[in-house]
Amino acid sequence: MAYEFDGQIAVTRAPDGEGGSQWSADLSEGWLVGGGVNGGYLLAVIGNALRHTFADKPDPIAVSAYYLSASAPGPATVDVRVRREGGSVATAAADLRQGQDTRITALATYGDLDRLGDDVRTTAQEPDMPPPDDCVPNSMAPPEVRAIAPLMDRFDMRFHPDHVGWAVGQPSGAGELSAWFRLVDGREPDPVALLMVVDALPPVTFDLGMMGWAPTLELTAHVRAKPAPGWLKVRHATRNMAGGMFEEDCEVWDSAGRLVAQSRQLARQPRPV
Amino acid sequence: MAYEFDGQIAVTRAPDGEGGSQWSADLSEGWLVGGGVNGGYLLAVIGNALRHTFADKPDPIAVSAYYLSASAPGPATVDVRVRREGGSVATAAADLRQGQDTRITALATYGDLDRLGDDVRTTAQEPDMPPPDDCVPNSMAPPEVRAIAPLMDRFDMRFHPDHVGWAVGQPSGAGELSAWFRLVDGREPDPVALLMVVDALPPVTFDLGMMGWAPTLELTAHVRAKPAPGWLKVRHATRNMAGGMFEEDCEVWDSAGRLVAQSRQLARQPRPV
Repeated sequence: MAYEFDGQIAVTRAPDGEGGSQWSADLSEGWLVGGGVNGGYLLAVIGNALRHTFADKPDPIAVSAYYLSASAPGPATVDVRVRREGGSVATAAADLRQGQDTRITALATYGDLDRLGDDVRTTAQEPDMPPPDDCVPNSMAPPEVRAIAPLMDRFDMRFHPDHVGWAVGQPSGAGELSAWFRLVDGREPDPVALLMVVDALPPVTFDLGMMGWAPTLELTAHVRAKPAPGWLKVRHATRNMAGGMFEEDCEVWDSAGRLVAQSRQLARQPRPV
Repeated sequence: MAYEFDGQIAVTRAPDGEGGSQWSADLSEGWLVGGGVNGGYLLAVIGNALRHTFADKPDPIAVSAYYLSASAPGPATVDVRVRREGGSVATAAADLRQGQDTRITALATYGDLDRLGDDVRTTAQEPDMPPPDDCVPNSMAPPEVRAIAPLMDRFDMRFHPDHVGWAVGQPSGAGELSAWFRLVDGREPDPVALLMVVDALPPVTFDLGMMGWAPTLELTAHVRAKPAPGWLKVRHATRNMAGGMFEEDCEVWDSAGRLVAQSRQLARQPRPV
């Protein structure tokens, strides 16, 4: 494979299972963070299996994932059951499994983003970011942080200086994070990669001074357009922490200034460390 | 049943199906709108079957529904397969079927909202609404509109005067709708009813001057707290119309000023009428 990321999300078709197709994957230890495998990367693995399921509908339009148990690096299976096909979109259920354990159960609708028409009316505001070189790179993270978060070696991330105070013990309290993002291997973004991008930043709760890991209960991503090559702008925000949970909204903007993905996840509030 | 709505979402346990429980429902013609049954009402029917599935986890925390085909009034079945149980939350897959046709396939996580703790930090702003009596009631809709939308007789809805210009051919163009909401039968809101409330307002595209029906592809709702009795405030907004689709974000605030539900749906842009 030309790019590291394509190898890490690669799937190969296995003999069909009960009621659907089965795909084998090898979860990469390169996406470990805090002892678990990053949820966005896992979503991209599922998304890649679905892309190969629907020949003429290669692009994720909506994907909803429920995280049932923590994944480990190594072999995994994606079971796909098509629930509706025909028309311009198709819907399937997909389970990511390791042995007898289901890690993630998901629903997804796929289509062809090139055929959806191009009437765009966006009132959403593109995040105002200083140029990448004026932002704070993830390579500045201390060695002990990088040691427990190998995923940080997969991408070049440049944090908005206004929302990186958490790195020096001074979180802004606004509940907002934004960063430039690209894969270090030079692979350009595509719709399946966006499923990883929406969960690549640290939890937005860092900006509220909660530095722990925030397990995702549910994440739904909408891919709204094919991203142009180049840097992506990623913005996370939360507005409602309650009952031990918070929502994390993510927007991804491409280098052409287009809002290419929107996601929301419900996650557990990190426990005090 | 004391309340109309409870009768309309009622489910009775049928003999177990393959791999899970089965529930019978009778979809009410009272929730028809434009020839189809309202998607939020259908979500509440599914939500009610799930509530009866999990004895000690009665409340929807996250529900993701993929709409596969239009429902008709009459008998329906909800098939529930529990995917994970144990701990403070449980996750299930649920299908709403009529005959051989699956109408909706859904994933849901349930829990007990009373046991989730009460640390609340909301930066979201409660919508600023004039009192209900200074807003525009849905009862003012012309008879020809009410005839194709019987669901309007189920609730008392008072629209914010700033975003009801679409009713007289003058949409604001902002992509925003808000209204007071309560059921006419006097039933107070609860977590399952909130699944209906998040899809009860007209499509937010009305405020963009697109007056047609907007079919939902996917809707995910997060119930964040038990609602207090009384009027609810419901706010819909969209920020990104592209590729023939738009996202509709919904917030529901209770009479105590608490953000009790958040949802996002991806829907098809209405065709010009």
